Order: sequence, then structure tokens, then C-alpha cells
Amino acid sequence: MNLHATVRVALDDRSYDIQIGTGLLGAPSTWQGLPAASTAVIVTNTTVSPLYAETVRRGLSAHYPRVLSVELPDGEAHKDWTTLNLIFDALLGAACDRKTVLVALGGGVVGDMTGFAAACYMRGVPFVQVPTTLLAQVDSSVGGKTAVNHPLGKNMIGAFYQPVRVICDLDTLATLPARELSAGLAEVIKYGPIADPSFLDWIEAELPALMARDTSALARAVARSCEIKAEVVGGDERESGNRAILNFGHTFGHAIEAGMGYGAWLHGEAVGCGMVMAADLSARLGLMPAEFVDRMRRICVAAGLPVRAPDLGAERYLALMQVDKKAEAGEIRFVVIDHMGHARMQGAPEALVRDVIAAACA
Amino acid sequence: MNLHATVRVALDDRSYDIQIGTGLLGAPSTWQGLPAASTAVIVTNTTVSPLYAETVRRGLSAHYPRVLSVELPDGEAHKDWTTLNLIFDALLGAACDRKTVLVALGGGVVGDMTGFAAACYMRGVPFVQVPTTLLAQVDSSVGGKTAVNHPLGKNMIGAFYQPVRVICDLDTLATLPARELSAGLAEVIKYGPIADPSFLDWIEAELPALMARDTSALARAVARSCEIKAEVVGGDERESGNRAILNFGHTFGHAIEAGMGYGAWLHGEAVGCGMVMAADLSARLGLMPAEFVDRMRRICVAAGLPVRAPDLGAERYLALMQVDKKAEAGEIRFVVIDHMGHARMQGAPEALVRDVIAAACA
Repeated sequence: MNLHATVRVALDDRSYDIQIGTGLLGAPSTWQGLPAASTAVIVTNTTVSPLYAETVRRGLSAHYPRVLSVELPDGEAHKDWTTLNLIFDALLGAACDRKTVLVALGGGVVGDMTGFAAACYMRGVPFVQVPTTLLAQVDSSVGGKTAVNHPLGKNMIGAFYQPVRVICDLDTLATLPARELSAGLAEVIKYGPIADPSFLDWIEAELPALMARDTSALARAVARSCEIKAEVVGGDERESGNRAILNFGHTFGHAIEAGMGYGAWLHGEAVGCGMVMAADLSARLGLMPAEFVDRMRRICVAAGLPVRAPDLGAERYLALMQVDKKAEAGEIRFVVIDHMGHARMQGAPEALVRDVIAAACA
Repeated sequence: MNLHATVRVALDDRSYDIQIGTGLLGAPSTWQGLPAASTAVIVTNTTVSPLYAETVRRGLSAHYPRVLSVELPDGEAHKDWTTLNLIFDALLGAACDRKTVLVALGGGVVGDMTGFAAACYMRGVPFVQVPTTLLAQVDSSVGGKTAVNHPLGKNMIGAFYQPVRVICDLDTLATLPARELSAGLAEVIKYGPIADPSFLDWIEAELPALMARDTSALARAVARSCEIKAEVVGGDERESGNRAILNFGHTFGHAIEAGMGYGAWLHGEAVGCGMVMAADLSARLGLMPAEFVDRMRRICVAAGLPVRAPDLGAERYLALMQVDKKAEAGEIRFVVIDHMGHARMQGAPEALVRDVIAAACA
């Protein structure tokens, strides 16, 4: 496996490349060919900034006369309008024009907020994703979903807005806390059951190497995840159909996140637990054998993910899932696996959903 | 002139019709063929709601099982995130899903905010424009520019997001305060110098009829304005080029609005005064004869528009114009008339701009 790979996201005039490799942030070639502008603005957070902002600033300075940066507070709890407005304040305070290039340097929260800021600032400026967490590299930085949270629901206010480039430097994963590595692995694992059985076999076999941050194993995990995501997104940019399968585990997961208060569980942790619940629902619907549920649980445990759901009470789970973006006319829609490597969306009898919740909380 | 006209905005899969006529709100056919959903939400303001919300609710009820409404405070001063959030709160509080259709019933502020809310809610739901002011009918409801204001600049946070239909019921203009009628006429007048000299001749001749709200004169003014706007927008949806000519008078106008505090001058009033200033700049640049400036001033006065600019001081004007969305790398870009019926964008020597400001404030 080559440690420098490029995955193309094909979306007509909004197509772009995902660069995956080591040493990318410090390589001058990484920053070539971005849109011309007088100013680039690095948007990062207080945790990531001291680690990588200077390297990125140097790379950008070769192409932009002015490079500014904005530091946001770290964490999902700050993924709201108030924090988003810090970006707008900085841009307007520095008289940034509508060619200004935003550069999201950080994890999923920074990427989602910077992307949404780019979508809205003067009705749209270009932006680059530089994901520094595994979760952001394999999932949130790719595909153009941007958003902030609302007190009544996660990612409820946002836009589909594609970056002009995604730069996944695997070196940044070295500084990632163990809990965030696990959270990222949840999204990697997800791609197996929904799209590629042999990838799930590979993940299962390589989990020790992935947990040990073996660069070549991580490179393959990131590249294959991005390939699958790019293909799904290329076929359904605005999630009018099949793109929703990428939300396997997310309906239950979002309820856990919202129910516990954003930030208590990491998104990936909630998705890991939610995948086990969605696997269980698939089994209870008669679509998959019970063995599949055990396997998903085993893999998640090996990836360091929680598999026991918080006991919010079934009513709270149901209420939170009813405001999920996939719900229609009050009916909760779940992503289920109907055969290994293939997912679909459907409703489910409430009694079965209650059984899933009860089993996961036990 | 037929009092029922349809103007098509051609934008590929985002194309839509502008319906122009009398008695539209109460006609069942007006509401046919909109996207299916379980819920439609009328977004209006406290002034317009008692006048037309019930009629619109009746029309929508034939097609949507649930019709809700949200009342915003009235006025440009409320075109901000706090007010926008009232829409999100209502949508999420009522568990509205991502097929929900928003209906903007009101003037430009309601239309811009509802459109932006539709662009962002769950990353995009369909919306209908029902403009009830002349300004909104001839300008802001058409073309998909949506936004809210930021303390440092007007319409700085927004999106290009097209409605699925625009319904211009001329009957709503009967209840319009005189000041708002004049403000709307500013945008009507604008289309003459930038695109259609004979339309400017017609406006000049028909201003008494327009000021007297003659329905057939208003119908022609709205229809021709929408035709010109549809053509310009169809050729440049995201304002990467020629669409900017629609901002004739707006660079100076935005500075007046921001400098006086949003709401002190109506947008159209500021545009009227700004057009005279932009005409003056065109003359000082040697592009147009001085007679053109006098004519624009005369037409604006006849339309009840202010032509004397507030004395903010030249420095403040220049600073405010530097954060205009059309500015690039700190250079202010003006829309000027280079021959009657044709506009272009360009910079201008600061000394000339100062002369324009001094003359307008005198």
C-alpha cells in the first residue's frame, strides 16, 4: 500500500481530490493549485492550533499574501451559532472579501463549522478540509455535509457545500487521544456492513494494528473508507436516496448524543453503540442472523468503543429519534443491513425498537 | 397588458415560475403543484399576518395536512440570527421533517430570512416566495439570494437558494405604505439604465400612474422587472459575473443603510439615493453625460425617493463600502452605467468617489 493516495470525489463542477499520506502538511506541493485570493483564513481550535497551525500557515503563505487564523473553543458542545459567529466576526473584522479561502484544520466539529461558515459567508467562499482526527479523515471531511447543532437536534442547521480539497495527513493521527482514535474507527467499521464485506474482514483482522496506529494499516483504512464514501456521495450528493446508508448506526447514535448532552459521548462512540443497536434491529427484523449482532459487538469492543447504551428510557429515545433528519411525517426511518455489504432504509415496528433499546441498555 | 402573467426563471433543475396577477392568493390554482409534504409553514411578520395569512392558510390547507405559521417581528432591524432562530425553533418544536415546505409571506426581510432558513433547515427544504411589497415582487423574491445581516455588514451571511415558486399578487400592494411603494419603485427604476432604455422611458411617463397604484401600470412594472431579473439571474446564478449589475446603486446604498443603522432608511430609499450617486460617478468617470444624473435625480424625486445622502463623512462611506461583497482585496467595485441600458463593474479613483459623496451630501 502506497502511503500517498488520491481519491477523487466526482461531483461535476464541484469535484475534488482527497489527498491521503504522511508528511503532507509540510510538503509545499500540498498547497499548490488552490483558488487564488488575497487572504486565506485557518480555522482551527485551541487544541489543534499549537500542534499544526504554524506548519499550515507556512504552506499557505507561499500562495496567499495574507494568512489569518481563528481559534475556536474545542468540542461538540461549542458546535453552535455562537461559535460559528466567531468565524464571521473574524472574517468581517479583517474585511475578508468573497474570494477568501477558509482552511478547516481540526476534527469533525471544526470541519463542519468551517464548511458551514464558508457556505454562508457572503453566500459562499471556497474552503479546504484538513482533518486531523481519524473520524474527520474517514467521514466528516468528505462529502460536503456542513452544519451546526440546535438545542433540539444535532446538525439541524447546515448546508451541502463541498470543499475544494481534502488533505488527510496521517501523521496528525499520532497525537490523537486514544478515545478519539476509537471514535474514528467506528466510522471505519461502518463501511464494512453497508458496502464491503471483505473490508470488514480486513478491519477485524487488522484491529490490533489499527489500535497501535500502524501507519500503513491506517493509510489503508482511510483510503478505503474515503473511496466508499466518495462513491456513495458521487451518486447522491444531497441525500435524496442511497447516501442515507452512510448513517448506519446514526439514528440511535444521535439519540444517545443528544440525550446525554452534546460532548458527553464522542460522536464516534455514539455511532459505535448505535451500530450495534442497528445491527440488532436488522436481526430482529429477520434480515440478518443473530451472529451478525455478536460480531459487530465484538469488533466495536475490540476497537475500544462502548456497546452498552445509556439508559435514557425508551420514550426519550423514541422522541429524540423522531426529530432525526431521516424521519418523515413522524415515522422514524432506520438504516438496516439486509445482507452483508448492503444497507437500506426502512421503518420498524415500535415494539421491536423498544426491544432493541431495552437490550442495549441492559 | 394581461393582468395574469408568468415569468420563467431558467436555472436547470432549479427553474421556477413567477406568477404575477390580481386575486392570486385566494385562487385555488395558485397553490397547486407545489412539492408534497405533510406540513407547510407560513413565515410572515406581525404586520402582514393579519392581512393575508388566513387566505394563504386556506389555499395551502387544500394540499397540506398541517399548516403552521411563524410570526417574526417586522423590519430590517430584525433581519438577524436571533430572528432567524425563531423559525428554526418553530420548525424543530413542531418536529417538521425535511420535506416541509416554507412559505415566505411578506416583504424582502421575510423573504430573505425565510429563504435562508429553508436553505439551512436540515440542509435544505423547499420554499415558496409570496412577496407582498413592490420591492420584494420586483427584486428580492426572485433569484435566490437569501441572507441575514451581520453587525458589520448587510446580507453578509446567506446562501444562493432558489424558491420553487414566486407568487406576486398585485392586490397586496393596495395596503402598502406610501414610503414602501416608493422604495419598491427604486428597484423598478434601476432596471432601465442597466438593461432597457425604453423601460426607463415608460417608467418616466407612467410614474404618476404607478404612484397612484394603477393596477395595470403596476402589473407591467412588476412583469418587466421580473423578466429582466430572470434573464440576468439565468445567465449568472451565483454572481460570478454579470449578475452584479443588478446592484446598481447598492454599493452607496448599502453604506447609507449600514451607516444610518439598519431600518432608519428603507433599502429601496437607500438604493434610490445610491443610484443617483452611481449615476454621478458614471458621469464623473466620463461614461455618461451630466444630463443622465439630472434625469435619474428627477425620476427618483418623482418616485418619492430621497436623493440627498446622509452626511456620514467620506471616511465612513469609504470604510463601509470596503466591506461590500463586491469589493476585492480592499478595492471597492462599483456598478456604473457605460451607456444607457448597459452597466459594468469597475473600480474608481478615490478622489472621484469623494466628490460623489460630497455632492450627494451637500
